[in-house]
Amino acid sequence: MERAKIRLHVDHPLGQGQAVPLTQDQAHYLFSVMREGPGSKVALFNGRDGEWTAEVAEAAKKGGRLVCLEQAAAQLNPPDLWLIFAPIRKERTDFIVEKATELGCARVLPVQTDFTNAQRIRQDRLQAHALEAAEQCLGTYVPPVDDLVALNALMKGWDPARRILWADESLVGPAETLSGLAPGPWAILIGPEGGFSEAERARLRGLDFVTPVSLGPRILRADTAACAAITLWQAALGDWR
Amino acid sequence: MERAKIRLHVDHPLGQGQAVPLTQDQAHYLFSVMREGPGSKVALFNGRDGEWTAEVAEAAKKGGRLVCLEQAAAQLNPPDLWLIFAPIRKERTDFIVEKATELGCARVLPVQTDFTNAQRIRQDRLQAHALEAAEQCLGTYVPPVDDLVALNALMKGWDPARRILWADESLVGPAETLSGLAPGPWAILIGPEGGFSEAERARLRGLDFVTPVSLGPRILRADTAACAAITLWQAALGDWR
Repeated sequence: MERAKIRLHVDHPLGQGQAVPLTQDQAHYLFSVMREGPGSKVALFNGRDGEWTAEVAEAAKKGGRLVCLEQAAAQLNPPDLWLIFAPIRKERTDFIVEKATELGCARVLPVQTDFTNAQRIRQDRLQAHALEAAEQCLGTYVPPVDDLVALNALMKGWDPARRILWADESLVGPAETLSGLAPGPWAILIGPEGGFSEAERARLRGLDFVTPVSLGPRILRADTAACAAITLWQAALGDWR
Repeated sequence: MERAKIRLHVDHPLGQGQAVPLTQDQAHYLFSVMREGPGSKVALFNGRDGEWTAEVAEAAKKGGRLVCLEQAAAQLNPPDLWLIFAPIRKERTDFIVEKATELGCARVLPVQTDFTNAQRIRQDRLQAHALEAAEQCLGTYVPPVDDLVALNALMKGWDPARRILWADESLVGPAETLSGLAPGPWAILIGPEGGFSEAERARLRGLDFVTPVSLGPRILRADTAACAAITLWQAALGDWR
Protein backbone atom coordinates (compact mmCIF):
# COMPACT_ATOMS: atom_id res chain seq x y z
CA MET A 1 0.00 0.00 0.00
CA GLU A 2 1.42 3.39 -0.96
CA ARG A 3 2.14 5.71 1.92
CA ALA A 4 -0.62 8.31 2.29
CA LYS A 5 0.47 11.87 1.55
CA ILE A 6 -1.69 13.57 4.16
CA ARG A 7 -0.62 12.93 7.73
CA LEU A 8 -2.74 13.69 10.78
CA HIS A 9 -2.10 13.49 14.50
CA VAL A 10 -5.06 12.14 16.47
CA ASP A 11 -5.59 11.42 20.15
CA HIS A 12 -7.56 8.26 19.45
CA PRO A 13 -6.10 4.72 19.78
CA LEU A 14 -5.00 3.22 16.46
CA GLY A 15 -5.16 -0.43 15.42
CA GLN A 16 -6.44 -2.86 12.80
CA GLY A 17 -10.01 -1.94 11.81
CA GLN A 18 -10.14 0.81 14.43
CA ALA A 19 -12.64 3.59 13.67
CA VAL A 20 -11.31 7.08 14.33
CA PRO A 21 -13.66 10.07 14.58
CA LEU A 22 -12.50 13.40 13.17
CA THR A 23 -12.71 16.73 14.96
CA GLN A 24 -14.36 19.64 13.20
CA ASP A 25 -10.96 21.17 12.42
CA GLN A 26 -9.65 17.93 10.96
CA ALA A 27 -12.79 17.45 8.89
CA HIS A 28 -12.50 21.01 7.58
CA TYR A 29 -8.84 20.48 6.69
CA LEU A 30 -9.37 17.11 5.03
CA PHE A 31 -12.61 17.69 3.16
CA SER A 32 -12.73 21.44 2.51
CA VAL A 33 -9.06 22.43 2.27
CA MET A 34 -7.54 19.25 0.85
CA ARG A 35 -10.70 18.19 -1.05
CA GLU A 36 -10.48 14.58 0.12
CA GLY A 37 -13.56 12.43 0.52
CA PRO A 38 -14.80 8.86 1.13
CA GLY A 39 -12.17 6.32 0.06
CA SER A 40 -9.23 8.74 0.44
CA LYS A 41 -6.19 7.41 2.29
CA VAL A 42 -4.76 9.33 5.24
CA ALA A 43 -1.78 8.55 7.49
CA LEU A 44 -2.56 8.73 11.22
CA PHE A 45 -0.33 8.76 14.28
CA ASN A 46 -1.09 9.34 17.93
CA GLY A 47 2.38 9.29 19.46
CA ARG A 48 1.96 5.72 20.76
CA ASP A 49 0.79 3.25 18.12
CA GLY A 50 3.07 3.97 15.16
CA GLU A 51 1.70 5.26 11.86
CA TRP A 52 -1.44 3.80 10.35
CA THR A 53 -2.90 4.10 6.91
CA ALA A 54 -6.58 4.88 7.27
CA GLU A 55 -9.41 5.32 4.80
CA VAL A 56 -12.13 7.94 4.93
CA ALA A 57 -15.39 6.10 5.72
CA GLU A 58 -17.62 9.11 6.34
CA ALA A 59 -17.10 12.73 5.36
CA ALA A 60 -19.24 15.54 6.68
CA LYS A 61 -18.85 19.27 7.07
CA LYS A 62 -18.29 19.18 10.80
CA GLY A 63 -16.85 15.73 11.32
CA GLY A 64 -16.19 12.36 9.78
CA ARG A 65 -14.83 8.92 10.42
CA LEU A 66 -11.69 7.11 9.31
CA VAL A 67 -10.99 3.39 9.52
CA CYS A 68 -7.46 2.07 10.09
CA LEU A 69 -6.34 -0.35 7.35
CA GLU A 70 -2.76 -1.26 8.19
CA GLN A 71 0.26 -0.09 10.11
CA ALA A 72 2.59 1.87 7.81
CA ALA A 73 5.39 2.40 10.33
CA ALA A 74 6.16 0.97 13.75
CA GLN A 75 6.19 3.26 16.77
CA LEU A 76 9.67 4.76 17.21
CA ASN A 77 10.17 6.13 20.69
CA PRO A 78 13.24 8.24 21.47
CA PRO A 79 15.85 7.14 24.00
CA ASP A 80 15.48 8.46 27.55
CA LEU A 81 16.94 11.89 26.83
CA TRP A 82 15.41 15.16 27.98
CA LEU A 83 16.32 18.64 26.81
CA ILE A 84 16.38 21.49 29.32
CA PHE A 85 16.76 24.88 27.67
CA ALA A 86 16.27 28.56 28.46
CA PRO A 87 13.75 30.10 26.06
CA ILE A 88 15.18 32.86 23.93
CA ARG A 89 13.61 34.79 21.10
CA LYS A 90 10.41 33.23 19.74
CA GLU A 91 11.89 32.09 16.45
CA ARG A 92 14.85 30.35 18.10
CA THR A 93 12.71 28.82 20.83
CA ASP A 94 10.47 27.29 18.18
CA PHE A 95 13.55 26.07 16.45
CA ILE A 96 14.91 24.34 19.55
CA VAL A 97 11.60 22.53 20.15
CA GLU A 98 11.52 21.49 16.49
CA LYS A 99 15.08 20.16 16.54
CA ALA A 100 14.61 18.33 19.85
CA THR A 101 11.64 16.55 18.26
CA GLU A 102 13.47 15.70 15.04
CA LEU A 103 16.71 14.58 16.66
CA GLY A 104 14.88 12.39 19.18
CA CYS A 105 14.35 13.83 22.67
CA ALA A 106 11.76 12.26 24.96
CA ARG A 107 10.77 15.46 26.81
CA VAL A 108 11.44 19.18 26.54
CA LEU A 109 11.74 21.37 29.65
CA PRO A 110 11.94 25.15 29.24
CA VAL A 111 13.63 26.77 32.25
CA GLN A 112 13.91 30.28 33.55
CA THR A 113 17.48 31.31 34.36
CA ASP A 114 19.09 34.49 35.67
CA PHE A 115 19.72 35.69 32.11
CA THR A 116 16.46 34.43 30.58
CA ASN A 117 14.19 37.23 29.48
CA ALA A 118 11.03 35.14 29.27
CA GLN A 119 8.79 35.33 32.33
CA ARG A 120 6.37 32.89 30.81
CA ILE A 121 6.00 30.84 27.67
CA ARG A 122 3.10 29.77 25.50
CA GLN A 123 3.36 26.11 26.42
CA ASP A 124 0.41 25.22 24.17
CA ARG A 125 2.08 26.90 21.20
CA LEU A 126 5.38 25.11 21.80
CA GLN A 127 3.58 21.77 22.21
CA ALA A 128 1.79 22.38 18.91
CA HIS A 129 5.15 23.15 17.36
CA ALA A 130 6.59 19.83 18.54
CA LEU A 131 3.56 18.05 17.08
CA GLU A 132 4.00 19.85 13.77
CA ALA A 133 7.69 18.88 13.67
CA ALA A 134 6.75 15.22 14.21
CA GLU A 135 4.03 15.47 11.55
CA GLN A 136 6.40 16.91 8.97
CA CYS A 137 9.29 14.54 9.61
CA LEU A 138 7.14 11.39 9.69
CA GLY A 139 7.84 11.04 13.40
CA THR A 140 5.60 8.80 15.49
CA TYR A 141 6.52 10.35 18.85
CA VAL A 142 5.76 13.86 20.11
CA PRO A 143 7.84 14.95 23.12
CA PRO A 144 5.80 16.58 25.87
CA VAL A 145 6.81 20.22 26.36
CA ASP A 146 6.64 21.29 30.00
CA ASP A 147 5.62 24.69 31.26
CA LEU A 148 8.35 27.11 32.30
CA VAL A 149 10.00 26.44 35.68
CA ALA A 150 12.87 28.17 37.44
CA LEU A 151 16.22 26.37 37.02
CA ASN A 152 16.84 26.47 40.78
CA ALA A 153 13.49 24.84 41.54
CA LEU A 154 14.07 22.21 38.86
CA MET A 155 17.50 21.35 40.24
CA LYS A 156 16.18 21.21 43.81
CA GLY A 157 13.66 18.51 42.99
CA TRP A 158 15.86 16.72 40.45
CA ASP A 159 16.15 12.93 40.61
CA PRO A 160 19.94 12.40 40.64
CA ALA A 161 19.49 9.08 38.82
CA ARG A 162 19.01 11.18 35.67
CA ARG A 163 22.36 12.70 34.85
CA ILE A 164 22.64 16.13 33.25
CA LEU A 165 25.00 16.94 30.42
CA TRP A 166 25.66 20.65 30.77
CA ALA A 167 26.79 22.47 27.64
CA ASP A 168 29.11 24.77 29.56
CA GLU A 169 29.90 27.73 27.33
CA SER A 170 32.98 28.56 29.39
CA LEU A 171 34.61 25.30 28.28
CA VAL A 172 35.66 26.57 24.88
CA GLY A 173 38.13 23.91 23.93
CA PRO A 174 38.24 20.35 22.69
CA ALA A 175 34.95 18.58 23.37
CA GLU A 176 34.75 15.77 25.88
CA THR A 177 34.41 12.37 24.38
CA LEU A 178 30.83 11.57 25.20
CA SER A 179 31.43 7.91 24.51
CA GLY A 180 32.96 7.68 28.00
CA LEU A 181 29.65 8.58 29.66
CA ALA A 182 27.55 5.98 31.43
CA PRO A 183 24.32 4.90 29.74
CA GLY A 184 21.02 5.52 31.47
CA PRO A 185 18.57 8.41 31.68
CA TRP A 186 20.10 11.77 30.74
CA ALA A 187 19.10 15.37 30.23
CA ILE A 188 20.99 17.98 28.21
CA LEU A 189 21.10 21.49 29.69
CA ILE A 190 21.56 24.48 27.36
CA GLY A 191 21.85 28.03 28.68
CA PRO A 192 20.33 31.20 27.27
CA GLU A 193 22.19 33.70 25.10
CA GLY A 194 24.63 35.26 27.51
CA GLY A 195 25.10 31.93 29.29
CA PHE A 196 24.53 31.19 32.95
CA SER A 197 25.19 33.63 35.82
CA GLU A 198 28.14 33.07 38.14
CA ALA A 199 25.77 31.95 40.90
CA GLU A 200 24.12 29.43 38.59
CA ARG A 201 27.48 28.18 37.37
CA ALA A 202 28.73 27.66 40.93
CA ARG A 203 25.55 25.80 41.81
CA LEU A 204 25.70 23.56 38.72
CA ARG A 205 29.37 22.79 39.36
CA GLY A 206 28.40 21.61 42.85
CA LEU A 207 25.83 19.07 41.66
CA ASP A 208 27.11 15.49 41.43
CA PHE A 209 24.72 14.54 38.67
CA VAL A 210 25.85 17.38 36.37
CA THR A 211 28.65 16.75 33.84
CA PRO A 212 29.95 19.84 32.03
CA VAL A 213 30.83 19.33 28.38
CA SER A 214 32.46 21.53 25.76
CA LEU A 215 31.00 21.89 22.28
CA GLY A 216 34.20 22.79 20.48
CA PRO A 217 36.33 25.92 20.27
CA ARG A 218 33.64 28.24 18.82
CA ILE A 219 30.92 30.17 20.57
CA LEU A 220 27.57 28.67 19.54
CA ARG A 221 24.13 30.17 19.72
CA ALA A 222 21.83 28.37 22.13
CA ASP A 223 19.89 26.68 19.32
CA THR A 224 23.07 25.47 17.64
CA ALA A 225 24.38 24.17 20.96
CA ALA A 226 21.14 22.23 21.46
CA CYS A 227 21.44 20.55 18.04
CA ALA A 228 25.12 19.74 18.55
CA ALA A 229 24.71 18.35 22.07
CA ILE A 230 21.72 16.16 21.16
CA THR A 231 23.61 14.85 18.11
CA LEU A 232 26.71 13.95 20.13
CA TRP A 233 24.62 12.28 22.84
CA GLN A 234 22.59 10.32 20.29
CA ALA A 235 25.74 9.09 18.55
CA ALA A 236 27.42 8.13 21.85
CA LEU A 237 24.57 6.81 24.00
CA GLY A 238 21.32 7.06 22.06
CA ASP A 239 19.71 5.22 19.17
CA TRP A 240 22.03 6.56 16.47
CA ARG A 241 24.66 4.00 17.39
CA MET B 1 41.47 45.62 28.29
CA GLU B 2 37.75 44.92 28.30
CA ARG B 3 36.36 43.38 25.16
CA ALA B 4 34.61 45.99 23.02
CA LYS B 5 30.86 45.51 22.71
CA ILE B 6 30.56 46.66 19.12
CA ARG B 7 32.06 44.30 16.60
CA LEU B 8 32.76 45.19 12.96
CA HIS B 9 33.99 43.21 10.00
CA VAL B 10 36.45 45.14 7.84
CA ASP B 11 38.40 44.22 4.72
CA HIS B 12 41.52 46.05 5.85
CA PRO B 13 44.61 44.33 7.34
CA LEU B 14 44.70 44.44 11.14
CA GLY B 15 47.81 44.67 13.34
CA GLN B 16 49.46 46.65 16.12
CA GLY B 17 49.02 50.40 15.50
CA GLN B 18 47.33 49.74 12.16
CA ALA B 19 45.03 52.55 10.99
CA VAL B 20 41.73 51.32 9.56
CA PRO B 21 39.51 53.63 7.49
CA LEU B 22 35.74 53.33 7.86
CA THR B 23 33.28 53.11 5.01
CA GLN B 24 30.37 55.52 4.94
CA ASP B 25 28.00 52.78 6.16
CA GLN B 26 30.27 51.85 9.05
CA ALA B 27 30.71 55.51 10.04
CA HIS B 28 26.93 55.99 9.96
CA TYR B 29 26.39 52.90 12.10
CA LEU B 30 29.12 53.75 14.63
CA PHE B 31 28.64 57.48 15.01
CA SER B 32 24.98 58.12 14.17
CA VAL B 33 23.25 54.89 15.17
CA MET B 34 25.45 53.76 18.08
CA ARG B 35 26.46 57.31 19.12
CA GLU B 36 30.12 56.39 19.47
CA GLY B 37 32.89 58.96 18.94
CA PRO B 38 36.62 59.57 19.32
CA GLY B 39 38.11 57.36 22.04
CA SER B 40 35.39 54.67 21.74
CA LYS B 41 36.60 51.08 21.59
CA VAL B 42 35.46 48.80 18.77
CA ALA B 43 36.28 45.15 18.04
CA LEU B 44 37.45 44.50 14.48
CA PHE B 45 37.95 41.30 12.51
CA ASN B 46 38.73 40.71 8.86
CA GLY B 47 38.57 36.92 8.65
CA ARG B 48 42.36 36.55 8.67
CA ASP B 49 44.06 38.45 11.52
CA GLY B 50 42.00 37.47 14.58
CA GLU B 51 40.01 40.06 16.53
CA TRP B 52 41.52 43.43 17.40
CA THR B 53 40.44 46.09 19.84
CA ALA B 54 40.60 49.41 18.05
CA GLU B 55 39.97 52.98 19.13
CA VAL B 56 38.13 55.63 17.18
CA ALA B 57 40.75 58.21 16.15
CA GLU B 58 38.61 60.28 13.78
CA ALA B 59 34.83 60.42 13.47
CA ALA B 60 33.08 62.15 10.60
CA LYS B 61 29.68 61.94 9.00
CA LYS B 62 30.82 60.02 5.93
CA GLY B 63 33.90 58.23 7.23
CA GLY B 64 36.39 57.93 10.02
CA ARG B 65 39.50 56.16 11.16
CA LEU B 66 40.19 53.54 13.81
CA VAL B 67 43.56 52.54 15.21
CA CYS B 68 44.25 48.96 16.34
CA LEU B 69 45.42 48.77 19.97
CA GLU B 70 45.81 45.09 20.72
CA GLN B 71 44.71 41.65 19.59
CA ALA B 72 41.69 40.49 21.61
CA ALA B 73 41.44 36.99 20.10
CA ALA B 74 43.71 34.92 17.90
CA GLN B 75 42.55 33.97 14.44
CA LEU B 76 40.61 30.67 14.60
CA ASN B 77 40.35 29.02 11.21
CA PRO B 78 38.05 26.05 10.73
CA PRO B 79 39.36 22.62 9.76
CA ASP B 80 39.34 21.75 6.06
CA LEU B 81 35.65 20.90 5.89
CA TRP B 82 33.28 22.13 3.19
CA LEU B 83 29.50 21.96 3.22
CA ILE B 84 27.65 21.18 -0.01
CA PHE B 85 23.89 21.68 0.30
CA ALA B 86 20.84 22.10 -1.89
CA PRO B 87 19.13 25.43 -1.18
CA ILE B 88 15.62 25.06 0.15
CA ARG B 89 13.23 27.71 1.40
CA LYS B 90 14.89 31.06 2.12
CA GLU B 91 14.60 30.82 5.89
CA ARG B 92 16.15 27.35 6.04
CA THR B 93 18.85 28.21 3.52
CA ASP B 94 19.87 31.16 5.69
CA PHE B 95 19.84 28.86 8.64
CA ILE B 96 22.18 26.33 7.01
CA VAL B 97 24.69 29.05 6.10
CA GLU B 98 24.51 30.41 9.65
CA LYS B 99 25.05 26.99 11.23
CA ALA B 100 27.90 26.08 8.85
CA THR B 101 29.62 29.29 9.95
CA GLU B 102 29.02 28.73 13.67
CA LEU B 103 29.95 25.05 13.69
CA GLY B 104 33.14 25.67 11.72
CA CYS B 105 33.02 24.98 7.98
CA ALA B 106 35.72 26.41 5.73
CA ARG B 107 33.55 26.87 2.62
CA VAL B 108 29.89 26.61 1.70
CA LEU B 109 28.79 25.35 -1.72
CA PRO B 110 25.12 25.58 -2.71
CA VAL B 111 24.23 23.02 -5.38
CA GLN B 112 21.35 22.51 -7.73
CA THR B 113 19.93 18.99 -7.68
CA ASP B 114 17.08 17.24 -9.47
CA PHE B 115 14.72 18.05 -6.58
CA THR B 116 16.04 21.56 -5.83
CA ASN B 117 13.54 24.26 -6.62
CA ALA B 118 16.03 27.12 -6.67
CA GLN B 119 17.28 28.07 -10.15
CA ARG B 120 19.55 30.73 -8.71
CA ILE B 121 20.52 32.06 -5.31
CA ARG B 122 21.36 35.48 -3.98
CA GLN B 123 25.01 34.64 -3.33
CA ASP B 124 25.70 38.13 -1.98
CA ARG B 125 22.87 37.81 0.53
CA LEU B 126 24.05 34.39 1.72
CA GLN B 127 27.63 35.67 2.01
CA ALA B 128 26.39 38.60 4.10
CA HIS B 129 24.49 36.12 6.24
CA ALA B 130 27.67 34.10 6.90
CA LEU B 131 29.45 37.31 7.86
CA GLU B 132 26.65 38.28 10.24
CA ALA B 133 26.79 34.82 11.86
CA ALA B 134 30.54 35.22 12.44
CA GLU B 135 30.00 38.75 13.80
CA GLN B 136 27.37 37.61 16.28
CA CYS B 137 29.20 34.52 17.52
CA LEU B 138 32.55 36.27 17.92
CA GLY B 139 33.93 34.21 15.04
CA THR B 140 37.10 35.37 13.31
CA TYR B 141 36.56 33.38 10.10
CA VAL B 142 33.87 33.86 7.46
CA PRO B 143 33.41 30.92 5.10
CA PRO B 144 33.17 31.91 1.45
CA VAL B 145 29.76 31.03 0.00
CA ASP B 146 29.98 29.95 -3.63
CA ASP B 147 27.43 30.67 -6.31
CA LEU B 148 24.97 27.92 -7.23
CA VAL B 149 26.35 25.11 -9.42
CA ALA B 150 24.75 21.90 -10.66
CA LEU B 151 25.61 18.85 -8.58
CA ASN B 152 26.60 16.91 -11.70
CA ALA B 153 29.02 19.62 -12.84
CA LEU B 154 30.49 19.87 -9.34
CA MET B 155 31.06 16.12 -9.14
CA LYS B 156 32.58 16.04 -12.64
CA GLY B 157 35.32 18.47 -11.71
CA TRP B 158 35.75 17.23 -8.14
CA ASP B 159 39.26 16.63 -6.79
CA PRO B 160 39.01 13.07 -5.42
CA ALA B 161 41.59 13.94 -2.73
CA ARG B 162 38.73 15.70 -0.92
CA ARG B 163 36.39 12.99 0.30
CA ILE B 164 32.65 13.55 0.54
CA LEU B 165 30.52 12.46 3.47
CA TRP B 166 27.08 11.98 2.00
CA ALA B 167 24.17 12.21 4.42
CA ASP B 168 22.18 9.52 2.65
CA GLU B 169 18.58 9.79 3.77
CA SER B 170 17.86 6.24 2.64
CA LEU B 171 20.21 4.91 5.33
CA VAL B 172 17.75 5.28 8.18
CA GLY B 173 19.44 3.13 10.77
CA PRO B 174 22.32 3.23 13.21
CA ALA B 175 24.81 5.91 12.22
CA GLU B 176 28.26 5.03 10.98
CA THR B 177 31.01 5.64 13.44
CA LEU B 178 32.70 8.59 11.85
CA SER B 179 35.76 8.05 14.00
CA GLY B 180 36.77 5.33 11.54
CA LEU B 181 37.13 7.84 8.70
CA ALA B 182 40.53 8.94 7.44
CA PRO B 183 41.60 12.50 8.29
CA GLY B 184 42.22 14.98 5.48
CA PRO B 185 40.09 17.38 3.46
CA TRP B 186 36.41 16.53 3.51
CA ALA B 187 33.08 17.89 2.32
CA ILE B 188 29.65 17.07 3.72
CA LEU B 189 26.83 16.67 1.19
CA ILE B 190 23.24 17.30 2.26
CA GLY B 191 20.33 16.82 -0.11
CA PRO B 192 17.21 18.94 -0.51
CA GLU B 193 13.84 18.20 1.06
CA GLY B 194 12.68 15.17 -0.87
CA GLY B 195 16.23 13.83 -1.04
CA PHE B 196 18.21 12.98 -4.15
CA SER B 197 16.73 11.49 -7.33
CA GLU B 198 17.40 7.86 -8.22
CA ALA B 199 19.81 8.96 -10.97
CA GLU B 200 21.72 11.16 -8.54
CA ARG B 201 21.83 8.39 -5.96
CA ALA B 202 23.20 5.90 -8.47
CA ARG B 203 25.84 8.40 -9.57
CA LEU B 204 26.90 9.23 -6.00
CA ARG B 205 27.10 5.55 -5.12
CA GLY B 206 29.51 5.08 -8.03
CA LEU B 207 31.98 7.72 -6.87
CA ASP B 208 34.99 6.36 -4.95
CA PHE B 209 35.45 9.54 -2.93
CA VAL B 210 31.85 9.52 -1.63
CA THR B 211 31.08 7.80 1.70
CA PRO B 212 27.39 7.48 2.58
CA VAL B 213 26.53 7.96 6.24
CA SER B 214 23.32 7.57 8.24
CA LEU B 215 22.16 10.23 10.68
CA GLY B 216 20.12 8.00 12.94
CA PRO B 217 16.74 6.32 12.63
CA ARG B 218 14.64 9.49 12.20
CA ILE B 219 13.95 11.52 9.09
CA LEU B 220 15.68 14.88 9.47
CA ARG B 221 15.00 18.13 7.67
CA ALA B 222 17.90 19.25 5.48
CA ASP B 223 18.95 21.97 7.94
CA THR B 224 18.91 19.54 10.86
CA ALA B 225 20.91 17.02 8.86
CA ALA B 226 23.51 19.70 8.10
CA CYS B 227 23.92 20.56 11.81
CA ALA B 228 24.12 16.92 12.83
CA ALA B 229 26.61 15.90 10.13
CA ILE B 230 28.94 18.86 10.79
CA THR B 231 28.81 18.13 14.53
CA LEU B 232 29.68 14.45 14.08
CA TRP B 233 32.51 15.28 11.68
CA GLN B 234 33.92 17.97 13.97
CA ALA B 235 33.88 15.60 16.95
CA ALA B 236 35.48 12.76 14.96
CA LEU B 237 37.95 14.52 12.66
CA GLY B 238 37.75 18.27 13.24
CA ASP B 239 38.84 20.70 15.91
CA TRP B 240 36.26 19.65 18.53
CA ARG B 241 38.44 16.68 19.51
